[in-house]
Amino acid sequence: MRTSKYLLATLKENPADADLISQKLMIRAGLVRKLSSGLFTWLPLGLRVLRKVEAIIREEMNAIDGLEILMPNVQPAELWQESGRWDAYGKELLRIQDRHDRPFVFGPTHEEVVTDVARNELRSYKQLPLCVYQIQTKFRDEIRPRFGIMRAREFIMKDAYSFHADYDSLKKTYDDMYQAYTNIFTRLGLNFRAVEADTGSIGGSGSHEFQVIADSGEDALVFSDSSDYAANIEKASAYVSDKRNVATEEKKLVATPNKKTIQDVCEFLNLPEDRSVKVLLVKGKKHPIIALILRGDHTVNEIKAEHHPLIDSPLSFVETTDFPTGFLGPIDFKEKNIHVIADRDAAILANFCCGANQTDYHFTGVNWDRDAHFDEVYDLRNVVEGDKSPDGQGHLIIKRGIEVGHIFQLGDKYSSAMKANVLDENGKSIVMQMGCYGIGVSRIVAAAIEQHYDDYGILWPAAMAPFQVALVPMNYHKSHRVREFTEKLYQDLQAANIEVLLDDRRERPGILFADMDLIGIPHRIVIGENGIDNGTVEYKARTEKEAKHVSVSDVLKILS
Amino acid sequence: MRTSKYLLATLKENPADADLISQKLMIRAGLVRKLSSGLFTWLPLGLRVLRKVEAIIREEMNAIDGLEILMPNVQPAELWQESGRWDAYGKELLRIQDRHDRPFVFGPTHEEVVTDVARNELRSYKQLPLCVYQIQTKFRDEIRPRFGIMRAREFIMKDAYSFHADYDSLKKTYDDMYQAYTNIFTRLGLNFRAVEADTGSIGGSGSHEFQVIADSGEDALVFSDSSDYAANIEKASAYVSDKRNVATEEKKLVATPNKKTIQDVCEFLNLPEDRSVKVLLVKGKKHPIIALILRGDHTVNEIKAEHHPLIDSPLSFVETTDFPTGFLGPIDFKEKNIHVIADRDAAILANFCCGANQTDYHFTGVNWDRDAHFDEVYDLRNVVEGDKSPDGQGHLIIKRGIEVGHIFQLGDKYSSAMKANVLDENGKSIVMQMGCYGIGVSRIVAAAIEQHYDDYGILWPAAMAPFQVALVPMNYHKSHRVREFTEKLYQDLQAANIEVLLDDRRERPGILFADMDLIGIPHRIVIGENGIDNGTVEYKARTEKEAKHVSVSDVLKILS
Repeated sequence: MRTSKYLLATLKENPADADLISQKLMIRAGLVRKLSSGLFTWLPLGLRVLRKVEAIIREEMNAIDGLEILMPNVQPAELWQESGRWDAYGKELLRIQDRHDRPFVFGPTHEEVVTDVARNELRSYKQLPLCVYQIQTKFRDEIRPRFGIMRAREFIMKDAYSFHADYDSLKKTYDDMYQAYTNIFTRLGLNFRAVEADTGSIGGSGSHEFQVIADSGEDALVFSDSSDYAANIEKASAYVSDKRNVATEEKKLVATPNKKTIQDVCEFLNLPEDRSVKVLLVKGKKHPIIALILRGDHTVNEIKAEHHPLIDSPLSFVETTDFPTGFLGPIDFKEKNIHVIADRDAAILANFCCGANQTDYHFTGVNWDRDAHFDEVYDLRNVVEGDKSPDGQGHLIIKRGIEVGHIFQLGDKYSSAMKANVLDENGKSIVMQMGCYGIGVSRIVAAAIEQHYDDYGILWPAAMAPFQVALVPMNYHKSHRVREFTEKLYQDLQAANIEVLLDDRRERPGILFADMDLIGIPHRIVIGENGIDNGTVEYKARTEKEAKHVSVSDVLKILS
Repeated sequence: MRTSKYLLATLKENPADADLISQKLMIRAGLVRKLSSGLFTWLPLGLRVLRKVEAIIREEMNAIDGLEILMPNVQPAELWQESGRWDAYGKELLRIQDRHDRPFVFGPTHEEVVTDVARNELRSYKQLPLCVYQIQTKFRDEIRPRFGIMRAREFIMKDAYSFHADYDSLKKTYDDMYQAYTNIFTRLGLNFRAVEADTGSIGGSGSHEFQVIADSGEDALVFSDSSDYAANIEKASAYVSDKRNVATEEKKLVATPNKKTIQDVCEFLNLPEDRSVKVLLVKGKKHPIIALILRGDHTVNEIKAEHHPLIDSPLSFVETTDFPTGFLGPIDFKEKNIHVIADRDAAILANFCCGANQTDYHFTGVNWDRDAHFDEVYDLRNVVEGDKSPDGQGHLIIKRGIEVGHIFQLGDKYSSAMKANVLDENGKSIVMQMGCYGIGVSRIVAAAIEQHYDDYGILWPAAMAPFQVALVPMNYHKSHRVREFTEKLYQDLQAANIEVLLDDRRERPGILFADMDLIGIPHRIVIGENGIDNGTVEYKARTEKEAKHVSVSDVLKILS
C-alpha cells in the first residue's frame, strides 16, 4: 500500500477529551474517529488491526471445532422476557420499537437467541457437544461511555456458546476454550493473565476472565506471590481465620466530637484502624435494614455482598435518621430488629472501637458477645495487598487489568428457563448444559496499545501491526534512482508476502518518520542515494533507538 | 469438515410460509433460520457461502483502491436532519432513543456518516479521489418483510462511497466501480445485467442497477432486442414520436351504462383500447388536483410521474365527488382549474374515446385542441414489450430481475447539504462530488439460488459453494478399509486446498446423497469396498445425472 493512496489520518495533537493513552493514540494515529458518544468509525488503518485480531480468534475457534454463525443484531423482546433478563438487564439494554411498535433490543449479547436456535435445531445427545461462535457488533448503552474504544457503546465482540449433555462435556469444552483463549492472547503478543471471576449478569457457576495487565485497567486483580492463584478482586476470597483475639479490655464510652470517619476517630483515639469496625446499612431482601460490619481499614466488596441471599442486589445503602451518621456501632441493633452480618475479619476482632449510636461518641474496648452482636459471619470485604492468599500459599499482590475475555460455565441457567432440551441415550428429555465465551475484539486493540507504546506512538506486537514494514524513500519524487530502487524493493517485499506501507508522500523526512513511528509499524527501511551506491538501506526496528545500514538481502532476512 | 462435527441442519420438508424457491431452499438446506419477521440467523453452512461472496467483493474493491472502513450501525439523528432525510426517509428508517432519550437510527445506509467523516478528514484536492467501503449489517424496517433473505429487515450490504474534486474524477471512479461490479457478479457465476436505473431516495444524477435475471425477480427490466439498451422499467423512457394522427371523426356523446373500465368501455363500443384515454387524478405540489392522461392500454409509471416538478411525491391519488368515477375525460378540466399533463402517447392520439365527465357517458371521435385540452406533455407511462427501444434501435423485451447492486453518481447532494468542502489547486473552497455504490451481499446468496437449483436442491456456482467436494463413504462405520481409504483421500484433498465435506454420519446412503444434493456441493465422491479393489471411486458432478467410476488420480485432476 502507498500512503499517497491511503487515508493516513494522523494528527499532530492529542485529542482534548481523551484520558487514556490508547484513546489518544488511536485518534492521533488515525485508527478510529469518534462519531458520537461511544460510537466510532474504524478508519482503514485501524480496521486492518481489528481484522488481524479477528483472524487469529477465528483460527483458534475453528481449531477447537467452533462453528461460525451469525445471529441478528436486532432481537425480539420476547426471548429476553423468557429468560428473565428483559427486567433484570437494566438500561444498558438498548430497547427498540419497530414501525409496528413491537419491542426489540439491539443485542448486547446472544444467550437468548442462541438458546432459541439450539432448542429448535438440537434433538438428540448425538448432536452434542456443539460449539458455535460469531464475531459481531454489539451495543451496550453505557450511561457514560468513556475511555474511547475501551468502553464504547458499539463494539465488536466474539461470542461463543456451547451445548452439552452433561457437565463433564461442558467442563471439557470450557477447558478447551481456556486453552484457545490462552493461545489467542499469546499469539497477539499481549501480557495477560487468566483470573477467577464473578459471573455477573450473565450468570452460571464457574468463570474466568482474561485480563491484559495495564496500569490504566479498570479491574483490580489479585495474585499470590507464591502460587498460581489469580482472581478478580470482585471474586477474591479473603483468607479465612476464625481465631478470635482475647478480650482483655473493658467497654468504655469516649467522646469523639465531630470525628465521623474511621481515620479521624482512630487518629483522635490513637488507635490503629484495624482495631476499629465500621457499619454500613444496606437494603435487605426481607429486612428493611441490614447492617454490614467491616474492619475499619477494609472496604466492602459489593459483588460479594450482593451474593448474600438476604442482601438486595444491586447493593443499595439505606439512609436513616434513627442513628447518627458517623457514629454507628453494632451495639443495640438486635433490639432494633436489624439483621447484622459481620465480615470474617471483623468477627475475629477483640477490644475494638466502634460508634456508640450517639452523636459524638464512640466505644473502645468493645468485645463481641459481651458488648456487641452479629447474626452471622460472611466474606464481605475486598482483599488488600499483603493479605494471605486464599489458597494458603504466600501473600497477595494487586495489579490493574483490562478485561479482554470472559468464559462462563452457564450450566442450565438459560436452557432451563427457555426449555432447551434434548433426548439422552435412554430417550429421556434432559436440559442441556451450556457455556458461553466472550472476547472484546475491538477492546483488544485499545488494550494492546495500553501495553505497547512509547513517547513517539504505538509499538504494535507483530501479529497486530497493520503493516510489517514502512518503506521510507528520501527524495522519492526528485531522484529517479531512489524511486526505481524503492519500487523494486516494494515489489520484492510484497512478493515475499510482507505487508509493506510505502510512504511516497511529498513531505519532509521528519514528518514521514514521525508518522511511521506514531502508527507503530514494527520495521522501518529508509532508502537514500548514498545507500544505493553501497547497495544498503537504513533499517530500524520500531523498538530500537538506532538505525543501522544493512544490505537489502539482510533486510529481507530480518523481515522473513 | 466432517458432518458429524458440523451443524448440518437440513430438513425433509419445505417451510410452510415460504413463497420463493430460494426461501424454501435456504431453510431446507440449513443455510439460515428465521428468528422473527425479517430477521435471520446464518447457520454455519450459509455463513460459509456469505463469506465467499464477501471475500470476492473485498478483492474487487481493493483492486480499484477502495479502502475498507467500518462505520457505526447506530447513527445520531442530527446527521439525518442535516441531510434532510430524517423527514424524507419514512418508516423504513428504524429510529431509536438511547437511555438519555437522544434520537438515533439503525443505519439503513451511510451517506450521512461517511460525508461527516469526509468533511472532517479531507482538506485538500490532493487527498482526492478517495473511495472507502464497508461490509456491514444494515436495517430497513420493511412494512411487510417477505421472500426470506431477499427482503429481510436486517441484511448485509457492501456500501462504498467516493469523493472527488470534479465530475470527471467521479465519472472515472463510477466507471471503475461499474467494471468491478461486473467482475464480482461474473466471478460469482451469476447471469446478470447492468441496467439504467432511477436514483430513488438516495438521489443524484446517473445510476445503474446490477440485476440477476430470474423469473421471481421483483423488478421489471427492459432490453432492446437490437442494441445494448437496458433499463429498469422505472427508468425506461417511452420512445418519442410527436406526429399526431389526423383528426377525421366528430366528437359524439355515447351512452356507456355501468361501463367504468377501459376494457369494458372499449369492448362495448367495439374500439381498440389504444384509441382511448384514461384519466388519473393526483395531488399536485401547487395544484390541489392534477389530471394525468394516458392511453387506455398503458399504465402509469409512478417513478416518472413523481419526477415531474408539479406532481406530489410520493404519488397520491385524489378522490373527488366533482366527477363521476369511471367516466372521466379531459373535456372541461380547464374550466375547473385542473392542470392536465398528457403522456406523450396520449398526446398524439386522434379520434379517441374518453369519459364525458357524466355518469354512464363517454365521448368518441374526440380530438385534442378542438374537443379536449392538456397543459403539457410528459413521459408518464411504463413501456411495454414491443415498444420501440428509446435509443431508436430495435424493440423492447421485458424480463424480471433481482437487484443485487446499485451504483450512483450522487454529485453534491450530500456534500452540499453537509458542507463537505476541500480546497482546490487555487486554494478555493469547493464542494466535493460524491458517488455511492451498494451491493446486497446477503441477497446475492438468495438470488444465486433463484438462478441455480433443480428438483433436488441448490446448484451452487463454484465460487459460492460452501464446500467444493462431498466425500460420501459407504459403510464408513463398519468397514475398516473404507474408513482408511476415505481418511486418506480426505487428507489428500485438504492438502490440495480443496474444501471437502466428509459425510461420516451413521445414516442410509440415500439420506447422505439427498443431503449433499440439497446443499448443492458441486462434486460428489462416493467410496465403496468394490471401488477400493479397483482403485476407483464413484464421481458425480452435481449438475450431471450419472456417476462414473474414476481413479483417485483422475478425481484429483477433475477437482483441481
